Amino acid sequence: MAATILSRQLTNILQQNLRFSLPRSRYVSQSANKTDVDDEFDGPLMKTEVPGPKSRKLMKKLNELQNTGAVNFFCDYEESRGNYLVDVDGNRMLDLYTQIASIPLGYNHPALVKVLQNPENAVAPKGLKQIQTMACGSCSNENAFKAACIWYRNKERGKAIHTKEELESCMINQAPGSPDITILSFMGGFHGRTFGCLTATHSKPVHKVDIPAFNWPTAPFPTLKYPLEEFVRENAQEEERCLEEVEDLIVKFRKKGRNVAAIIIEPIQSEGGDNHASDDFFKKLRNIAKKHGCAFLCDEVQTGGGSTGKFWAHEHWGLDDPADIVTFSKKFLSGGYFYKDELRPDVPYRIFNTWLGDPSKSLMFAEVLNVIKREKLLDNVIESGKVLLQGLKDLQVLYPHILNKARGKGTFCSIDAPNETIRNQLVLKMRNKGIVLGGCGEKSIRFRPALVFRPHHANLFLNVFSDILAVHK
Amino acid sequence: MAATILSRQLTNILQQNLRFSLPRSRYVSQSANKTDVDDEFDGPLMKTEVPGPKSRKLMKKLNELQNTGAVNFFCDYEESRGNYLVDVDGNRMLDLYTQIASIPLGYNHPALVKVLQNPENAVAPKGLKQIQTMACGSCSNENAFKAACIWYRNKERGKAIHTKEELESCMINQAPGSPDITILSFMGGFHGRTFGCLTATHSKPVHKVDIPAFNWPTAPFPTLKYPLEEFVRENAQEEERCLEEVEDLIVKFRKKGRNVAAIIIEPIQSEGGDNHASDDFFKKLRNIAKKHGCAFLCDEVQTGGGSTGKFWAHEHWGLDDPADIVTFSKKFLSGGYFYKDELRPDVPYRIFNTWLGDPSKSLMFAEVLNVIKREKLLDNVIESGKVLLQGLKDLQVLYPHILNKARGKGTFCSIDAPNETIRNQLVLKMRNKGIVLGGCGEKSIRFRPALVFRPHHANLFLNVFSDILAVHK
Repeated sequence: MAATILSRQLTNILQQNLRFSLPRSRYVSQSANKTDVDDEFDGPLMKTEVPGPKSRKLMKKLNELQNTGAVNFFCDYEESRGNYLVDVDGNRMLDLYTQIASIPLGYNHPALVKVLQNPENAVAPKGLKQIQTMACGSCSNENAFKAACIWYRNKERGKAIHTKEELESCMINQAPGSPDITILSFMGGFHGRTFGCLTATHSKPVHKVDIPAFNWPTAPFPTLKYPLEEFVRENAQEEERCLEEVEDLIVKFRKKGRNVAAIIIEPIQSEGGDNHASDDFFKKLRNIAKKHGCAFLCDEVQTGGGSTGKFWAHEHWGLDDPADIVTFSKKFLSGGYFYKDELRPDVPYRIFNTWLGDPSKSLMFAEVLNVIKREKLLDNVIESGKVLLQGLKDLQVLYPHILNKARGKGTFCSIDAPNETIRNQLVLKMRNKGIVLGGCGEKSIRFRPALVFRPHHANLFLNVFSDILAVHK
Repeated sequence: MAATILSRQLTNILQQNLRFSLPRSRYVSQSANKTDVDDEFDGPLMKTEVPGPKSRKLMKKLNELQNTGAVNFFCDYEESRGNYLVDVDGNRMLDLYTQIASIPLGYNHPALVKVLQNPENAVAPKGLKQIQTMACGSCSNENAFKAACIWYRNKERGKAIHTKEELESCMINQAPGSPDITILSFMGGFHGRTFGCLTATHSKPVHKVDIPAFNWPTAPFPTLKYPLEEFVRENAQEEERCLEEVEDLIVKFRKKGRNVAAIIIEPIQSEGGDNHASDDFFKKLRNIAKKHGCAFLCDEVQTGGGSTGKFWAHEHWGLDDPADIVTFSKKFLSGGYFYKDELRPDVPYRIFNTWLGDPSKSLMFAEVLNVIKREKLLDNVIESGKVLLQGLKDLQVLYPHILNKARGKGTFCSIDAPNETIRNQLVLKMRNKGIVLGGCGEKSIRFRPALVFRPHHANLFLNVFSDILAVHK
């Protein structure tokens, strides 16, 4: 696992104190007769200026990870009670702002008890030291797009300072303040369902129809022939064709004054049908992004977290500089993105929201990471994945009229039926035999077991699948 | 409180079983020596077809609240363990899909214990029976926009069925599948920071500059003169001017083939500077939306939850049919929107994401609601708000060179300084005296205390503020 573990102290800062406007939201109900008044302080009590020395020290540390301009001081949520917010320097303040109106019952209401205490460790992809937490996959991608656009425009201008014209025109959504720059995405890709993400999504019409979209470039994703070892030359040609189209689109859009600020890609197109490409394809694509000055965004919302046998699927590419931004969610229980120092926003509040993710989820994820390490679950994924994929390959040889294109990395596997009807029949038949499977793309079955899926589970599945296939008409 | 309480049983369904793809994410770490294997079942065990009779019954109930086409069956998360998902009919299935790859350690990993059990009650605005949960305010608004666009296009076509041309063109972001319909928003409004929301946001350039935006119409929001009672005629004229501009924009955009599908408004523009308008303004605006067939979206992300003295700020308007969609977040701990039956999507997966909000947050919010009722906190807000606003009005008479435009509903109050510098000085001085305040707009101080802010807290604040003002240079 070639990932960097951020120091406990720094991630502690991230979880426990993340910004002035992070609400205290890690409580759970229990029987409560006390009212909010009983426990409260009798007034403010100030020990230092705000921010005090401890807040300033923490700010300096956090600044290594992200822009801290939006941080006013650090809170001690354990000590805060009712209407009183206590900061890390022990200053007790009457709070008439409540994290932008987000603390309905005051701090530590006696009807609510805290359940989560421990800090976590975060896992950063190679070369990406900055992190931005978000509440879900869509918000992660939307904000990654924004970070890329800000970075790109700063590069174009050669500086981060805006003209009066830019500041005024953006307020009515007009250029130059609202620039006509674009994000290049791939046919078959899925990046979420909010307006920016949805523009970059091209997996199914049902996600997109009737919703306005930006006119951004869409490149073809390679359609590989299986088994891969039999179609090496054809597949290489297909990948070359797609890469050429990417460069053509970048140049074509540039000529129209609609520069491509970023390219977004999934290491394995998941919703789109588990479409794989070679490591060589991703390497060349990454180089095209560099050559044309586009940010390279790797969407690991579905692939990240270990199920490909590496913690990040992009680690399979074997690159020293795999991406400028890597987004995550799903297995991480919350969302966000890791990014390069140079993509860090220059001023506060450019990338921001009320919660910036959920510290309780980060804490749960800490325990997930502990278990992954303690139980060597990445090794398990590789082992179970081998059993699963080999079994699928054996079955497609036995049932070539029902199954083809068995493919996968780790347990992140899939196999195709001849059409949607048969795929859906197989999924339903398996469910009635007690096996839950999912579809993706037009006619694929995808496997997304948990990291604790063992080789014996793979065998159990293969036995039932084999039975079903034997009687499938 | 003129809101409807949804039945416990139905909201129970929403929280505990919400869709096939709702991950089990309500765990917390504790010491754990057991591995995932110890507790697991030894294989699938099927008692009924899937969905079984209990799942089908729950589906029928949930269908009254939202489109259930994306629901396959209902899970019993209490009984699920390791790689095995158990459904409400007692069927035990080996899960190779794990809620779209979102259950990293399997179900009920022994290192994680559940902390939340009880169902909640939800609070629906008048006339809005459907609910869609989401993880944050931005996602709530983005998806509300999408629901409005789908509804609008179905109306335009007279049916929900798409042509082949629509389904194909949307995949490359072109009309007619990606229609050039628009959302009308107001200058000074804030609706979030994702690409759709950001287009409708017009509070500060720092949120918008360098980010591509849709070319959607922006109407002026009334700039009222204070004290309101002295400028009745001028303010009515100003509101009339803005309403005329709204209609002009709708007509102008329609002529360009860019129909306005929805109007989005905050009952009080919050980030934009706590800008109020009269109940009459909102009533007329709501009628304009009806007249032109636009959905009327009320963004209560900041105003909802009780701080205006009513549970929803739009209740102050006194309308029988106040809105088609009401979005919420912040005080609700999670996000989402309530909406009319007619805006319900016709097919599944059109409005969807992995988590669709967070059931643990909904459960916490249940207890928030209980406390609001038990402690009569809306009454408290009205009482404390009176003390706060009267105090501010008294102070602006004493210090007219420093303070003006005291305004508010409930404790949702604000007051203006002559400029940004003085506003920021006051906020900092108050903080060093132990009072946390927030700014909004160019030069406003906004008050957003918790619902447990009592009259004595208001007096405490007013005393300190009075001291600061007495010595402010």
